[in-house]
Amino acid sequence: MSDNRYQKGMENLKVMNPKSFQTLEDSLTDIAPDLARYVVEFPYGDIYTRPGLDLKIRELVTISAITTMGGADNQLKSHIRGALNVGCTKEEILEVIIQMAVYAGFPRAINGVLAAKEVFGEEESE
Amino acid sequence: MSDNRYQKGMENLKVMNPKSFQTLEDSLTDIAPDLARYVVEFPYGDIYTRPGLDLKIRELVTISAITTMGGADNQLKSHIRGALNVGCTKEEILEVIIQMAVYAGFPRAINGVLAAKEVFGEEESE
Amino acid sequence: MSDNRYQKGMENLKVMNPKSFQTLEDSLTDIAPDLARYVVEFPYGDIYTRPGLDLKIRELVTISAITTMGGADNQLKSHIRGALNVGCTKEEILEVIIQMAVYAGFPRAINGVLAAKEVFGEEESE
Amino acid sequence: MSDNRYQKGMENLKVMNPKSFQTLEDSLTDIAPDLARYVVEFPYGDIYTRPGLDLKIRELVTISAITTMGGADNQLKSHIRGALNVGCTKEEILEVIIQMAVYAGFPRAINGVLAAKEVFGEEESE
Amino acid sequence: MSDNRYQKGMENLKVMNPKSFQTLEDSLTDIAPDLARYVVEFPYGDIYTRPGLDLKIRELVTISAITTMGGADNQLKSHIRGALNVGCTKEEILEVIIQMAVYAGFPRAINGVLAAKEVFGEEESE
Amino acid sequence: MSDNRYQKGMENLKVMNPKSFQTLEDSLTDIAPDLARYVVEFPYGDIYTRPGLDLKIRELVTISAITTMGGADNQLKSHIRGALNVGCTKEEILEVIIQMAVYAGFPRAINGVLAAKEVFGEEESE
Repeated sequence: MSDNRYQKGMENLKVMNPKSFQTLEDSLTDIAPDLARYVVEFPYGDIYTRPGLDLKIRELVTISAITTMGGADNQLKSHIRGALNVGCTKEEILEVIIQMAVYAGFPRAINGVLAAKEVFGEEESE
Repeated sequence: MSDNRYQKGMENLKVMNPKSFQTLEDSLTDIAPDLARYVVEFPYGDIYTRPGLDLKIRELVTISAITTMGGADNQLKSHIRGALNVGCTKEEILEVIIQMAVYAGFPRAINGVLAAKEVFGEEESE
Repeated sequence: MSDNRYQKGMENLKVMNPKSFQTLEDSLTDIAPDLARYVVEFPYGDIYTRPGLDLKIRELVTISAITTMGGADNQLKSHIRGALNVGCTKEEILEVIIQMAVYAGFPRAINGVLAAKEVFGEEESE
Repeated sequence: MSDNRYQKGMENLKVMNPKSFQTLEDSLTDIAPDLARYVVEFPYGDIYTRPGLDLKIRELVTISAITTMGGADNQLKSHIRGALNVGCTKEEILEVIIQMAVYAGFPRAINGVLAAKEVFGEEESE
Repeated sequence: MSDNRYQKGMENLKVMNPKSFQTLEDSLTDIAPDLARYVVEFPYGDIYTRPGLDLKIRELVTISAITTMGGADNQLKSHIRGALNVGCTKEEILEVIIQMAVYAGFPRAINGVLAAKEVFGEEESE
Repeated sequence: MSDNRYQKGMENLKVMNPKSFQTLEDSLTDIAPDLARYVVEFPYGDIYTRPGLDLKIRELVTISAITTMGGADNQLKSHIRGALNVGCTKEEILEVIIQMAVYAGFPRAINGVLAAKEVFGEEESE
């Protein structure tokens, strides 16, 4: 059932990034609520629930992908928060982003590190 | 010393992907040998030798980055081989690439899986 | 005549997006006025005047392209306004952007929907 | 039910592009069959079945997106075939791709037109 | 007059890259001849004729742009030929591409150097 | 020696862009100081010190690359400042960016020109 995917996705989101998703859902609710639902169902219900890779690695490969594509700072910060939530250390997150200097170039790596700095700063001020 | 970075990089490459690097170096030797040297020194000497992340995760985040950027099939295949060499399973590699459907879109994920299929096929025919 | 392309382009712009172009021209006038002129002549004079596709579809395919490339929020918002001006409904615009989750990934689609939300909000407050 | 999404997706695919999907499924079946299933369920089951935009426009905006991202020639050709299957004319397809010279640059537009030429040539030789 | 732009563009192309353009025009003539005409008029008629930058630098900045975007090998090779035609040395071309390792990442730089190698090889075998 | 690369890089940076680097180093010092060091060593120590291309052309090809990739406004502005520091004229910088309309599309070129406008404005108000 579709409900099942949604439920599994929401359970995952509760662990991974409940605040970010709430913010996203709030911003989409009056304009494209289906997109918020797809976010729960497809990435969090179908993909992040797959066996074969733990959530820590899943967040780290997402961070490298979003750092590489550029122009998606909010999503990058959201997944840096998610990585912390599932147990990645700050060092691991930074190592992934620094490594992107090799593959995506220095501008993307620098922007990624500055996004991480912002997220780590929020964490500390909470 | 710069030599030191080169040596450390070559030691890493011996573990990670000696064949791919040999092919690359052969193709660059008469036209841009310095670029081959930079590949040894910067990614393999400076970055992959950093503590904080093991080589398996380093290869997986590289695979997600190259899948995402697109248009770099040879490098993607080279790093899929590298991931196998440092102990990633085929399943882990595929999980990373499939997950890219969410962040880089289905065309990139499909092309990534087909690249993996090609590499896994080579392995089996050796 | 070149003047002819400029005139045709300006006539198109009057229908499609007079305010956005005025803002663009104002911002470019002292630094790169030729670029503003090229915008009139090439996209609006040469391309949008071509037969074979109506302006509504032309704006929708532009919206999918700019959503996909990322990092061009102002241009995306400008073309969302343009799409509304030539008669696209909000629903049509949103459907295009939501569909981009499949091809450009969820981060681009989410950013696109939020850009649309901003434009639709402006419209309502006028 | 998830089965329902799959069924709806397959019904859509029968109209839109049965051959391309068969080729894709054949190539993924032994390596990542779930990715083939996701293609049916998410783009074709969830997205292309949405009201608010007809399949012709859905294929045209996909063509502009894939032309823009570059490095996805097989997917571009597949969607050019899909566009023909749902009733787009060759002229409409070409107009979309030519327009991409403005937003994605001339190299992407030229590569897109050459992909279309290849697909149109296949059609004629059938 | 538009004819004037076309003439100026063709004069430029005779110096810069007559063979590449002939190949392009031949491939587009039966499918999208207007796109070939736009190539003459806009890049070669409007842009490359502008004062303020000589053709050598114009080709070098084009090479860095196309190396960076990836997925446009034919256009990259065409502009490497163009750079040679307007007097750039092989060393200058290679320096530009190698530098892209910093901004676009090593995969793009490596692919760029291999494209240059192919073009330089053709030159020598003529 | 590695120190040597760092020293050469810092000497280059003193000519090219001391303020931008200081800002970057300050922002990275507590989170990823190694990334700041790599910026000195690899781009400025290894690449910009290479013979075969003067610093003016090196900055212009960097500007076209960063304009093309998009989503890296701070780095683009930093290199526009760098280009001015090594003797490029405003006209040369603008010509490079305007030319990107052809290869990277109008949105990227427009964003690039507006970045240049911002940098040129700072210069004048100093």
